[in-house]
Amino acid sequence: MEKERVNEGKTKIVYSSDRSDTYLLKFKDDITALDGEKHDLLEGKGKINATISVELFELLEKNGIKTHLIEPLDSNSILVKKLEMMPLEVVCRNIAAGHFISRFSMFKKGQKLKFPIVEFYLKDDALHDPMLVEDHLVLLDLASEDEVTEIKEITRKINKVLFDFFLDKNLKLVDFKLEFGRDSKNQIILGDELNSDCMRLWDIDTGEILDKDVYRQNSSMNEVKETYEELYRRLFPDDKNM
Amino acid sequence: MEKERVNEGKTKIVYSSDRSDTYLLKFKDDITALDGEKHDLLEGKGKINATISVELFELLEKNGIKTHLIEPLDSNSILVKKLEMMPLEVVCRNIAAGHFISRFSMFKKGQKLKFPIVEFYLKDDALHDPMLVEDHLVLLDLASEDEVTEIKEITRKINKVLFDFFLDKNLKLVDFKLEFGRDSKNQIILGDELNSDCMRLWDIDTGEILDKDVYRQNSSMNEVKETYEELYRRLFPDDKNM
Repeated sequence: MEKERVNEGKTKIVYSSDRSDTYLLKFKDDITALDGEKHDLLEGKGKINATISVELFELLEKNGIKTHLIEPLDSNSILVKKLEMMPLEVVCRNIAAGHFISRFSMFKKGQKLKFPIVEFYLKDDALHDPMLVEDHLVLLDLASEDEVTEIKEITRKINKVLFDFFLDKNLKLVDFKLEFGRDSKNQIILGDELNSDCMRLWDIDTGEILDKDVYRQNSSMNEVKETYEELYRRLFPDDKNM
Repeated sequence: MEKERVNEGKTKIVYSSDRSDTYLLKFKDDITALDGEKHDLLEGKGKINATISVELFELLEKNGIKTHLIEPLDSNSILVKKLEMMPLEVVCRNIAAGHFISRFSMFKKGQKLKFPIVEFYLKDDALHDPMLVEDHLVLLDLASEDEVTEIKEITRKINKVLFDFFLDKNLKLVDFKLEFGRDSKNQIILGDELNSDCMRLWDIDTGEILDKDVYRQNSSMNEVKETYEELYRRLFPDDKNM
């Protein structure tokens, strides 16, 4: 059966699959920043981000969190459950960085927050992804009040699992972004991807940045490639191909 | 006893009073907009805003909502309970207008929201009063989780009372801003002021604007004066001095 391109984003392509309730999700080698204004190709990034996503989705599933992952297909494609995605970015922060410190200058970069906070943003490039209070989510028909509570609970649970996972690799999970969708039974399921494109990871001892910020900060493409590969090696020390 | 100036804002002065648990709040004739960049004097505004605030605080008290009002003193001063003010602006919206439509362009100006929404902003001119999600309020030590819930509940209750009050005067309460504080027993009490400097009021039939937006829109100072006086006359038709 011919795969049909359902949707193409900046770094991923969604294809139809031979089952009506699944999609094939392909990770591209593209890397982008600044709402897509900055754009490059990074050979091997698709494989790295697909592999890390599979690893983290499997870890979450083992911890009772529902994700869209069904199984990996090839090195840069995974089979996922078809979800109706919510146009929402859910951000969880453990440590002050990025937008947060420009908005709240009383926090210093790297300062530990006294508890992990959850923020919501409307996924809408034209409106520059405005931040949402909980009433906005209900008003904009993005989620019911109960679903907002559920999403916050799932996000905090995911944070706990991921934080401990990275701690074990000597990495600090600074913050991360999640996207959720609803399955055919209207259950809230974690979708999208989980890798260093959507999270900040710092080496605990050296503070070395192991995420897309290296690209945002206009490092050379060699440095960016080294950063993605270094994270991969830390997570999969036994893979001798990298 | 000499009154001591405790704090002077753009449109009000807080004085000490002869009781240690009260303040004297004086409404100035100043009118300002754009974070204080635009600034004029409007003779009689102090009296109008003090009188409307007293009327609305008394209305709320009658409806079981605690406010800082003790009693009016003279035409532009009121005696209030001393509160520890929270650096927070609580906005409630019934109809899309102002910032809301620039942030969410899918809403048209004047569009009724399907339920009244409550938003929080940090009162901090240097940071341009950033919007806050509920986690931020707790993180920034502005309020406990329970207090956030309480403030939202009080705000919705205030909205109900004010909305009906203005409806009876053929005015639509579009949105408004509240400021809360804590008394010596740590109770959440409504403070600050309640008048057309901090709410949008539109004539139900004609759409005529009866609030500070007339000043924001660079109307002549005569028109602005007429707007403040017109609202006063609508609320106090028996006061023959205006």
